[in-house]
Amino acid sequence: MMAGMTETPHPLYDRHAETLNRALAAITERGYWSAYPESPSPRVYGETAAADGKAAFEAYLDGDFPLDQPGTDDRVATEASPFGLKLGVRYPHAGADALVAAASAALPGWRDAGPQARVGVCLEILDRLHKHVFELANAVQFTTGQAFVMAFQAGGAHALDRALEALAYGYAEMTRHPGTAGWEKAAGKGEPLRMTKTFHVVPRGVALVVGCNTFPTWNSYPGLFASLVTGNPVVVKPHPRAVLPLAITVRYAREVLAEAGFDPNLILLAPEAPGEKLASTLALHPAVKIVDFTGSTEYGDWLEANARQAAVYTEKAGLNTVVVDSTDDFAGMCRNLGFTLSLYSGQMCTTSQNILIPAGGIATDQGHKSFDEVAAGIAGAVGKLTADPARGVEFTGAIVNDGVLARLAEVTGVGETVLESRAVEHPAFPDAVVRTPTIVKLPADATDTYSQEWFGPISFVIATDSTAHSLEILKATVGEKGALTAAVYATDEAVLDAAEAAAIEVGVHLSANLTGGVFVNQSAAFSDFHGSGANPAANAALTDGAYVANRFRIVQSRRPA
Amino acid sequence: MMAGMTETPHPLYDRHAETLNRALAAITERGYWSAYPESPSPRVYGETAAADGKAAFEAYLDGDFPLDQPGTDDRVATEASPFGLKLGVRYPHAGADALVAAASAALPGWRDAGPQARVGVCLEILDRLHKHVFELANAVQFTTGQAFVMAFQAGGAHALDRALEALAYGYAEMTRHPGTAGWEKAAGKGEPLRMTKTFHVVPRGVALVVGCNTFPTWNSYPGLFASLVTGNPVVVKPHPRAVLPLAITVRYAREVLAEAGFDPNLILLAPEAPGEKLASTLALHPAVKIVDFTGSTEYGDWLEANARQAAVYTEKAGLNTVVVDSTDDFAGMCRNLGFTLSLYSGQMCTTSQNILIPAGGIATDQGHKSFDEVAAGIAGAVGKLTADPARGVEFTGAIVNDGVLARLAEVTGVGETVLESRAVEHPAFPDAVVRTPTIVKLPADATDTYSQEWFGPISFVIATDSTAHSLEILKATVGEKGALTAAVYATDEAVLDAAEAAAIEVGVHLSANLTGGVFVNQSAAFSDFHGSGANPAANAALTDGAYVANRFRIVQSRRPA
Repeated sequence: MMAGMTETPHPLYDRHAETLNRALAAITERGYWSAYPESPSPRVYGETAAADGKAAFEAYLDGDFPLDQPGTDDRVATEASPFGLKLGVRYPHAGADALVAAASAALPGWRDAGPQARVGVCLEILDRLHKHVFELANAVQFTTGQAFVMAFQAGGAHALDRALEALAYGYAEMTRHPGTAGWEKAAGKGEPLRMTKTFHVVPRGVALVVGCNTFPTWNSYPGLFASLVTGNPVVVKPHPRAVLPLAITVRYAREVLAEAGFDPNLILLAPEAPGEKLASTLALHPAVKIVDFTGSTEYGDWLEANARQAAVYTEKAGLNTVVVDSTDDFAGMCRNLGFTLSLYSGQMCTTSQNILIPAGGIATDQGHKSFDEVAAGIAGAVGKLTADPARGVEFTGAIVNDGVLARLAEVTGVGETVLESRAVEHPAFPDAVVRTPTIVKLPADATDTYSQEWFGPISFVIATDSTAHSLEILKATVGEKGALTAAVYATDEAVLDAAEAAAIEVGVHLSANLTGGVFVNQSAAFSDFHGSGANPAANAALTDGAYVANRFRIVQSRRPA
Repeated sequence: MMAGMTETPHPLYDRHAETLNRALAAITERGYWSAYPESPSPRVYGETAAADGKAAFEAYLDGDFPLDQPGTDDRVATEASPFGLKLGVRYPHAGADALVAAASAALPGWRDAGPQARVGVCLEILDRLHKHVFELANAVQFTTGQAFVMAFQAGGAHALDRALEALAYGYAEMTRHPGTAGWEKAAGKGEPLRMTKTFHVVPRGVALVVGCNTFPTWNSYPGLFASLVTGNPVVVKPHPRAVLPLAITVRYAREVLAEAGFDPNLILLAPEAPGEKLASTLALHPAVKIVDFTGSTEYGDWLEANARQAAVYTEKAGLNTVVVDSTDDFAGMCRNLGFTLSLYSGQMCTTSQNILIPAGGIATDQGHKSFDEVAAGIAGAVGKLTADPARGVEFTGAIVNDGVLARLAEVTGVGETVLESRAVEHPAFPDAVVRTPTIVKLPADATDTYSQEWFGPISFVIATDSTAHSLEILKATVGEKGALTAAVYATDEAVLDAAEAAAIEVGVHLSANLTGGVFVNQSAAFSDFHGSGANPAANAALTDGAYVANRFRIVQSRRPA
């Protein structure tokens, strides 16, 4: 019998079996669960954790990042912090062929180790990353512009939860039937026919993960760990401006792999020189069989059209939409939307952009509110959150890149400004680029404007004829361009049902009547699906069966028993 | 709350829950199980079943097939029986737009019915088809050229088993988490955050099934029922020469759908006029989101490259390979391979083509056998099975089309004939086109000849330097062109392991030392995977998680609890 499916329990599997089993239960229940505490409090992580993590982060600056990878020709340093910090980390730089060759050579041993060993090693990697979560949080903060707490949560704890979720789905999929099975079929009066069948989990090949600038870990971990646990070596191509969080990830993953006796080249960092287009070279490499990408629609579409030898999973741009019909908590609605628009200056792929409000206004617990009053209510909530610079920057963080600034400039000309974007001086980082959100009023026929994504702190309040009209606009725009999130505010069940029907029709996840501490731009691992794959904003969801099932194949052998 | 996920048990679900639950267990155990008896014996099916089925089949001949479908412009009759029978069945013929429009209109009600209702209705369809299994078997026999027992088994009972297997996978995938879930997260000293989440199963859109000439039901049912149960209306485009088995399928499926109160246009037959290229028109239709195809590599590749709006599942051609190293049952090996080559005149996508034997011969229980003795042993087994025309035709059936005859003529020129193909007169059908298998000897360097598929009763015995050389050829040819099956005969565990390693490397299912009543060209539902998706012969397996998971999406809605 071949190795692989008749494995003895791996010590790292045993060590993490409880976490895995809890995660396996969580993905079937989809209630609340989290494995990695989201509070960076010293009461949770210890008195020195924050300082140690910061020091570890700072030790990387202006130095050669410690990564012993094959094929290194030179080093590249391409990052610039939105907080104005000089990073200057130099990463080992190799060509696509050298990376793919090293990854390919690592495949057989990892494949033959089997699902239990692989999931054990991957869980140990998450555990190791969790031990360095403050280091990771600092790296995420200073490459993306997220404020610290958000970087800790979204870039650290929640990213690890999403990784664990992907591991659980991958493991469940690989083990949904046994590694070996007996087969016995009656054969008339003779002896029964008896066979022993072995089912090998066989990976697709080398996997490529193309990271994004804003959520280098959260958006990369699901694909990375889904591919790795199913047996595929992973080449991680970070965004040139957000290399460090993934470099740290690769560093500790390689450390764990080597300790466990596996080839560390099962995971490789592929930083690129300016203008190199390494992602495209890697994505078209014949040995690359899986691509995970988060970023622009243009490049995602290019990957889907061109990386034909690979299974391609993309999360792209979209038109996140809010339908405001009525509310029994006007203040709560405005606070909730204000928080969503302010968080990370609207630079989340889940931030609402198009807020559809009947031109005639809406019914609320505070009586009828006109369109302008609703717009002013939301604008006021943003204003309140961002009024004090010291407090405001803890919500907004900094602006990730110049493209956002350009759009902020451009948007002033497209409609009537309800809330102006302000430049804010960061109290701790004088060179940080901080901008508060803007809200612009548009008529319903300004489709050309609001049916494109204005990534950044830019939202539109759009005056519609009615809620029915708002739902038509939602269906038309999201159907055509996609969305990761939609929200509705309504007191009438029939309106909520109509919104849900519209959301189902265009395949977008819907949140209803959020007025408290749950926000439309946040999704919780193990419970909320992120993206649906049912509209143009993404061709897959994080994480479901479809996200993992195609990353490996079953190859069967049978012998007479 | 929307309909769909909070469903009450559907009566058809209740009726078939036991079958479903047994099937759900079978796909996790992968031992022997079958729901539909494969013996056409009157003791199993009753004294009149065979005659009734034959009469029902004959009633279709030379008539308008009873199918009440929208958009019918005219009728088409394109079949010609390999048994020489005049069929002359006229099918309703509609254009792609009319078919897709009718299917699309049927989608919302089916989607909203939810997984339980859908699986209940689909199980009732299988039950109804099973009640007409002799009718189906006759239709398969006379369109494909299969002998009756094979048509009954592969085209009837086994096809229904494969359909049930696909239903079980689809149902398991749709229900791996609940339709609704409560979510409660502690929020410091305040009230916990509480949400109710609803997870809607949303189909991809219209599904297209493109049937093949040789196995119109067996190869079509998995995709058809996987798509249908996950909520997608299905347009069935049969092969022009094998329409009737799928017309009967669509007829009874529509009957069940209508009885259950659903739009019968959830399943539509799309027969084509000669040269119409309806499959291509349908496959490129923007509303068609899933395509299942069995047939030529050329057309499968075309679909994969061009039907970009759809998830495309293809089973194409391949080079099924046997590595003969040694055996402790020479007679059994020859008998087993002889049966494989003779069954349906080698016109199965799983029939072995390339038999790799060391030029120096092999060790057997009958002492050393030279290459020519091994070839003669296999040829002798074929000869014995096919010597008596009356008995032989019950194995070989008839030749499916003229392409096979052309290849039989061509192959006489490519090497030394070990076994000549003979034309046989069918005792019951004087116009049947019957041919016995040919075996041709090739040197190992005749790669140009044996690295293409010679579909039909054509096999090569290929003289290699050694078993190691045979395994190299297996890896090279199957790696490049793919295969659905591979077999090895060896008495040495190390050789079996080396063959298994080679099979894993090129992603082909391997059968070892088959000398009795299990054959490499047969795969059993619920236990054997058919195709792996890991080599060029198919991009998916029948049936695994990957085959069903991408046929629908989850769209979530959440509201404060």
